[in-house]
Amino acid sequence: MALSEFAFIARHLRPLAAGSPGALELLDDAALLDPPAGAELVLTKDAMVAGVHFLAEDPPAQIAQKLLRVNLSDLAAMGAAPLHYLLSLVRARDTTDAWLAEFCRGLAADQAEFDIGLLGGDTVATPGPLTLSLTAIGQVPKGQALRRSTARAGDDVWVSGTLGDGALGLRVLQGALEAPVEARAYLIARYRLPCPRLALGQALRGVASAALDISDGLLADLGHILETSEVGAEIRAAALPLSPAARALPGARDAALAGGDDYELLFTAPADRRPRIEALSRELVLPLTCIGRIEAAGGLRALDEQDRQIPAAATGWQHF
Amino acid sequence: MALSEFAFIARHLRPLAAGSPGALELLDDAALLDPPAGAELVLTKDAMVAGVHFLAEDPPAQIAQKLLRVNLSDLAAMGAAPLHYLLSLVRARDTTDAWLAEFCRGLAADQAEFDIGLLGGDTVATPGPLTLSLTAIGQVPKGQALRRSTARAGDDVWVSGTLGDGALGLRVLQGALEAPVEARAYLIARYRLPCPRLALGQALRGVASAALDISDGLLADLGHILETSEVGAEIRAAALPLSPAARALPGARDAALAGGDDYELLFTAPADRRPRIEALSRELVLPLTCIGRIEAAGGLRALDEQDRQIPAAATGWQHF
Repeated sequence: MALSEFAFIARHLRPLAAGSPGALELLDDAALLDPPAGAELVLTKDAMVAGVHFLAEDPPAQIAQKLLRVNLSDLAAMGAAPLHYLLSLVRARDTTDAWLAEFCRGLAADQAEFDIGLLGGDTVATPGPLTLSLTAIGQVPKGQALRRSTARAGDDVWVSGTLGDGALGLRVLQGALEAPVEARAYLIARYRLPCPRLALGQALRGVASAALDISDGLLADLGHILETSEVGAEIRAAALPLSPAARALPGARDAALAGGDDYELLFTAPADRRPRIEALSRELVLPLTCIGRIEAAGGLRALDEQDRQIPAAATGWQHF
Repeated sequence: MALSEFAFIARHLRPLAAGSPGALELLDDAALLDPPAGAELVLTKDAMVAGVHFLAEDPPAQIAQKLLRVNLSDLAAMGAAPLHYLLSLVRARDTTDAWLAEFCRGLAADQAEFDIGLLGGDTVATPGPLTLSLTAIGQVPKGQALRRSTARAGDDVWVSGTLGDGALGLRVLQGALEAPVEARAYLIARYRLPCPRLALGQALRGVASAALDISDGLLADLGHILETSEVGAEIRAAALPLSPAARALPGARDAALAGGDDYELLFTAPADRRPRIEALSRELVLPLTCIGRIEAAGGLRALDEQDRQIPAAATGWQHF
């Protein structure tokens, strides 16, 4: 028999709020948050639907972790440190208590990993697919949030980690791409469990001129920086950081350009900050790769190995 | 043709964020909130699913208003003043642009009414029913939020407005209850457009000993206060405030006791605050009715006109 909403909250959600005094043990109408002195709060809200944003057969703990991490990735992109989150859990008719217990186990693991606590939310039922919505709250010193609209001509364009893994992992899961067994496991893990670059985001405050996280794909997301900053850019496909697993597969370059689901940080910085960014890369043990440059003239040009422009449509990805 | 997500945000959502500088024109990964000095933030998150929490044929502007108002009602219950909200809009396949435009018109009307602005959120698609999730953020002077767990033996039990209208309005809409034409319109409006008691909630800071808003039904919600405060209560059904429309209908008393969807405030206060609460009622032009008393011994007794106890099951409502 399914647990009642009250029993479910008591058994599975209340323990997740134990470290958040403002959650009031999830017993009140709303939660309280005493903002840290000198801080600005950073808020983001992302929803995920079963069959659209994750696969119904994905492990429930990993679905929980992905939900939390895509929101934490937004905080990372603004240079914020995580504080709390609220969760709306819209249960489908076939959502079992065992599934929910596993889902909450995933949340518990990532709460410890990313030092964030449950503050509130609600659980309701739907005749449709399981739907999740999470609001993450972080903090940043007043006035120091990283923005998209502040890139300047002459800045370098950087990315963290490797690109294309998430999109290739999804293709592997869908049976649309064959890969060796180790590459399979790596790419699927990258799709299911993105790594929000929180330490990097915070370290980039005062270093990067603009930043965002790559969720729609490099070309689309760089486009957002260019549009809001009213500049252009040229990037070199040969410079794109690919994982060994991705590099061996057909379509890796195009997945890196336009595939989405990477949740790496894309940021710009004046050229004289290169040594500082390279030192940061060593300190965080995280590749940070310069892939191009911001230009005064509008438009985005991606050049291939022979300096020929790659048309966006030619990448074969339509994520954006 | 359906608008793309970007076009929809630009056309319909960005204007709703125009008064919220921290929304960054909805162009960034997350929103910023500079917390007012001396304030504690109050956060609540409620989801609504088409066909479950509202009827698919309800007017879209009123669905938007109800979504916002049930969340504002949670802020009211804590004594908070509204600041901002974030919205997840999970579009169904048959959600048209005209529907969305009307939905946003409802949000705009209530933003003006309740002095609240859109701060962020996201829009995604679902193969299931339209699903909405809203996170509302309010403020309260530090340490002054009203709570559920602080009722004391000897306190009076009060309710605002009239009870049972929302539940009767839903029955009328479902064709399960006949009512005269004017009563119909009144009850349906009460179901579709609850009035968050924001001015009352704020005025009750330092006056009420405990408070919440009635969403599950008076008996269930009073039960929440009793459980968290570790007290009991006796209420008199004869004292329940009924609207003229409700009073004329069969089942009005039971709807008032257990029907839910009223979004009135239920609060407790020491007996010596009666004159202050009666003055507040006149000032706000809002009925405030004493319906019983908190007792040291646990349990909730509802007495009928002949002082006989009414069993909860006898009300015929199973909302909780």
